[in-house]
Amino acid sequence: MSDIRVAFLLFPQVTQLDLAGPAQLLSRLKGARIDLVAATRDPVATDSGFAILPTATFDDVTAADILCIPGGFGTGAAMADPATRDWVRRVGEGAQWVTSVCTGALILGAAGLLDGYRATTHWASHEYLELFGAIPVADRVVFDRNRVTGGGVTAGIDFALALIAAIQGEDHARFVQLSVEYDPAPPFDAGTPARAGTEAIARYRDLAARMNPDRDARMRGLAAELRG
Amino acid sequence: MSDIRVAFLLFPQVTQLDLAGPAQLLSRLKGARIDLVAATRDPVATDSGFAILPTATFDDVTAADILCIPGGFGTGAAMADPATRDWVRRVGEGAQWVTSVCTGALILGAAGLLDGYRATTHWASHEYLELFGAIPVADRVVFDRNRVTGGGVTAGIDFALALIAAIQGEDHARFVQLSVEYDPAPPFDAGTPARAGTEAIARYRDLAARMNPDRDARMRGLAAELRG
Repeated sequence: MSDIRVAFLLFPQVTQLDLAGPAQLLSRLKGARIDLVAATRDPVATDSGFAILPTATFDDVTAADILCIPGGFGTGAAMADPATRDWVRRVGEGAQWVTSVCTGALILGAAGLLDGYRATTHWASHEYLELFGAIPVADRVVFDRNRVTGGGVTAGIDFALALIAAIQGEDHARFVQLSVEYDPAPPFDAGTPARAGTEAIARYRDLAARMNPDRDARMRGLAAELRG
Repeated sequence: MSDIRVAFLLFPQVTQLDLAGPAQLLSRLKGARIDLVAATRDPVATDSGFAILPTATFDDVTAADILCIPGGFGTGAAMADPATRDWVRRVGEGAQWVTSVCTGALILGAAGLLDGYRATTHWASHEYLELFGAIPVADRVVFDRNRVTGGGVTAGIDFALALIAAIQGEDHARFVQLSVEYDPAPPFDAGTPARAGTEAIARYRDLAARMNPDRDARMRGLAAELRG
């Protein structure tokens, strides 16, 4: 079997679980080769207090079978960086599957790869999808032709299983699911705004505002700049 | 609020999602400071094709509020390494919470920290818990006094939410759950041996045997050596 080249974008303040979940599961595709790609090979700080080493640079990786863009509080800065957008666009245009988890969808959108595609993202960022050309869908995993987008953070695990099934069949996906013992049993029912309650929602919005001051204005400004 | 020091063990061929899930969620404990601790500061190869940088060495971190040991195909080598066992034992003896995900429980056991404690681990390794002093329980998350163990890989997310609730209350855990949009929707029902089917089980056992030849003999040999 020939290799399946899976390329993740890595950028400062990435939500590391956005990529760790899919990378773990997709690494069990038959023939998978995982790359974490950044502008340079310097360690990249994540949002969890530790750094991950890129395996390759933008110059090293010019093509991939699966492009996967994670999100996180560094998403806005990644969207605003021309070199990042260029790499995402260049690899995305030739990839068999163009995918994202969490607010990575907004990076795909900023690179022009979601124009007219149905897509999802983290619940607190759905309002920005349309600004960058996507058709927002409030599902956990959304397939539209070769675009596959997952919701916030942990949706990356459901996303990866669905993608594995699409590429190598349901039997293989079931093997991967068993290997990571994915039989979820959340102790609470608070995974969506509809069920978490107003206090949890308010606290999350406070955290997001602290991590990304003026986010709304910056998103709208970037959309105006990129899309006229 | 004073810091909550969370120390993860990092070792070669760790299943990176075993630590990435808990690290993401526990980093949202109020006051959390996450360390990934290894023998040296050299990058540590994970099982997913990329490396993670330790934040500290065994010498740097001599105490923690939460000790968390992940697992993976490198578990046996970590268990057999005296410096690793000594660090785990030293930090674990003083920690408020002594925890593991996946086969990390066997490393806790090899360090002598599960004697007479109820514990769980990855489904394919339950048979080894007793060899290292633990009382095996086939649950996804097991609390016994200050020992908290999670099942395989993705159980680390459920484990982390339960631990957050125990430390900072259910409201805080619900906020963290919402922040990572943890409303799981697996596309298949194959997360346990009872439901995955015999083919998936056989394929996982083949993978584990390829990654760890003679594992059974080595586990039994190590248990005999350590526990007489």
